[in-house]
Amino acid sequence: MNIRGEHYRTIWPTDAHRSVTIIDQTALPFAFRTRLLRNAATVAEAIQTMQVRGAPLIGVAAAYGMALAMQTDASDASVERAHALLLATRPTAVNLAWALNRVRAALRTLSPSERPQAALQLAGQLADEDVAINQAMGEHGFGRIDALWRTRGGQGRINVLTHCNAGWLATVDWGTALAPVYRAFDAGIPIHVWVDETRPRNQGASLTAWELGQHGVPHTLIADNAGGHLMQHGHVDLCFVGTDRTTATGDVCNKIGTYLKALAANDNGVPFYVCAPSPSIDFSLTDGVQQIPIEERSEREVTHLWGLDDQGGVREVRVAPEGCRALNVGFDVTPARLVTELITERGCCRASSEGLAALFPERRIDTKRVR
Amino acid sequence: MNIRGEHYRTIWPTDAHRSVTIIDQTALPFAFRTRLLRNAATVAEAIQTMQVRGAPLIGVAAAYGMALAMQTDASDASVERAHALLLATRPTAVNLAWALNRVRAALRTLSPSERPQAALQLAGQLADEDVAINQAMGEHGFGRIDALWRTRGGQGRINVLTHCNAGWLATVDWGTALAPVYRAFDAGIPIHVWVDETRPRNQGASLTAWELGQHGVPHTLIADNAGGHLMQHGHVDLCFVGTDRTTATGDVCNKIGTYLKALAANDNGVPFYVCAPSPSIDFSLTDGVQQIPIEERSEREVTHLWGLDDQGGVREVRVAPEGCRALNVGFDVTPARLVTELITERGCCRASSEGLAALFPERRIDTKRVR
Repeated sequence: MNIRGEHYRTIWPTDAHRSVTIIDQTALPFAFRTRLLRNAATVAEAIQTMQVRGAPLIGVAAAYGMALAMQTDASDASVERAHALLLATRPTAVNLAWALNRVRAALRTLSPSERPQAALQLAGQLADEDVAINQAMGEHGFGRIDALWRTRGGQGRINVLTHCNAGWLATVDWGTALAPVYRAFDAGIPIHVWVDETRPRNQGASLTAWELGQHGVPHTLIADNAGGHLMQHGHVDLCFVGTDRTTATGDVCNKIGTYLKALAANDNGVPFYVCAPSPSIDFSLTDGVQQIPIEERSEREVTHLWGLDDQGGVREVRVAPEGCRALNVGFDVTPARLVTELITERGCCRASSEGLAALFPERRIDTKRVR
Repeated sequence: MNIRGEHYRTIWPTDAHRSVTIIDQTALPFAFRTRLLRNAATVAEAIQTMQVRGAPLIGVAAAYGMALAMQTDASDASVERAHALLLATRPTAVNLAWALNRVRAALRTLSPSERPQAALQLAGQLADEDVAINQAMGEHGFGRIDALWRTRGGQGRINVLTHCNAGWLATVDWGTALAPVYRAFDAGIPIHVWVDETRPRNQGASLTAWELGQHGVPHTLIADNAGGHLMQHGHVDLCFVGTDRTTATGDVCNKIGTYLKALAANDNGVPFYVCAPSPSIDFSLTDGVQQIPIEERSEREVTHLWGLDDQGGVREVRVAPEGCRALNVGFDVTPARLVTELITERGCCRASSEGLAALFPERRIDTKRVR
């Protein structure tokens, strides 16, 4: 993706692979700032404080965290320590465990002397895979946009609604939910995105609006409350969202509030697409509402907000009465029945065990075992 | 209602009826400030800037605006001028037109010399009627809470979810949606309220949380996105919301986002009650989505927020990228099929023409005429 015309990924190795650089997403949209991470502990901290966030990106960041740990200590104990440290940062997105398990499994087959180099190579490979996966999802999702555009005879504009940030900032490049949008925009289809601000952390307002703006894609920021009204009045043609964990049965865990948009889409006949790269699919789970652990974050993210003041400084303000208690639940689960299709790197499918098993036959769950 | 132990209404005549005093709701929850309004123009400005807000309260405030206009000029032209000025302040809540039409109709039957006194009397009567209506709704809604409490054998707690502020601050006293809550709390039922923060103006965070806190009712602030998740996990027993305009067929127009909560309640078998005082029912309309005018407010309410900074000053901050466009739709419509019951001052009924006609036979619509 381009930032002021220059191509960037969201994470890249630096300093002869002795560190990895990230874009500090907590500084956006007010400042574009990068940060050098030199060891697993700082990677873990960057994930926990959401300087890097988005399910695919935290998977890749964690893999780099493992690789950095190997540069100073490549023992078996160090592998386990880095794995545990990074795994504990955030509970919901399954990409994190997926990436960490993959790196650990690879390192276990190697001698300590081989690990520093191999771990860096594998982290880089995961980053490249993420880009390829997102490009493929972009192509499949584009098919859905293009088909609609053709049925309209190429008239008007296509209105997409998205929730939170599942754009390139949530991945290494391209994004998940926004990959089809960028692909359609680049193909010349007049596309416009309704951007849910996505309280409490405002990733829509601060990240999605920013990256769409950098790419030149027309967009309008809305309160999370507004999507239902827009759908009732025919102002939304398609919804595209990402996912932090999707079950083998097609239940979709994603940023809190996604479920409400899926209900509204269903009530108004608006297609609701979930871009689910395979590393975000947890083939061991069959019931999203019951089985997926949901992260609870600080109350302060609800009672307080930050933004740019009239002096140009970033400032936190309290919006609730003093001492008011709050609950901050990070994710919810959209039942498979509300999802029109899952868009994966292998194509689109029904949000069901059958749909997923057809695309990923090698990962078909043994329901006797799981249930 | 009590503020620091002292009983208040939200509006009251002052200065030997030459002015009316309001609580400036834009200063809450950070400061409790009252404001003296001396003429119709300042009342109109207070309504437009939402220093007074809430469908029932703006009806009463507008009636006082008419009364103040009569004190300096009681001519026919002045009646029409004040009516037009006040009616133009906000488009969605029907209470405004209802109150203004009622005052105008009464004044038209009187000579100019009788109008100053009569208008003040009528405004006071509308205020008292609002209090009585809300008490009655509180009683009927309490019946629903109490019944649930009894089926539980008096164990645990009752969890209510509410959206926006339909508490006493939205009315002259007691509130609409919160009247049953206060009634139940005062009766000793352990009740807890999930307070939707209600973006973009945060009336939940700033007003509902504040007034529940003043009364001592346990409550927890949540992002608007969170309600669906809470309902999926059984953490919401009942929803109570207010309404700015309800059609003769039971479609409910209320603060933007209400529709999303009604969908979630319906999907999870949670009763969804709308407290609809008769002045908020528009018996001339039959299709809420198509017929009710929806207010659009400033983009800045979405791109910017205000709150208390660490210096104790109220400060506005921008949360969106510079130049980001936004859409700010104030209300949405919940179709009657998603409403469990309307709670009116005459009792509870199905959200349907039949339900409303049974409670308000004298206002039964002539559907041949309306359609």
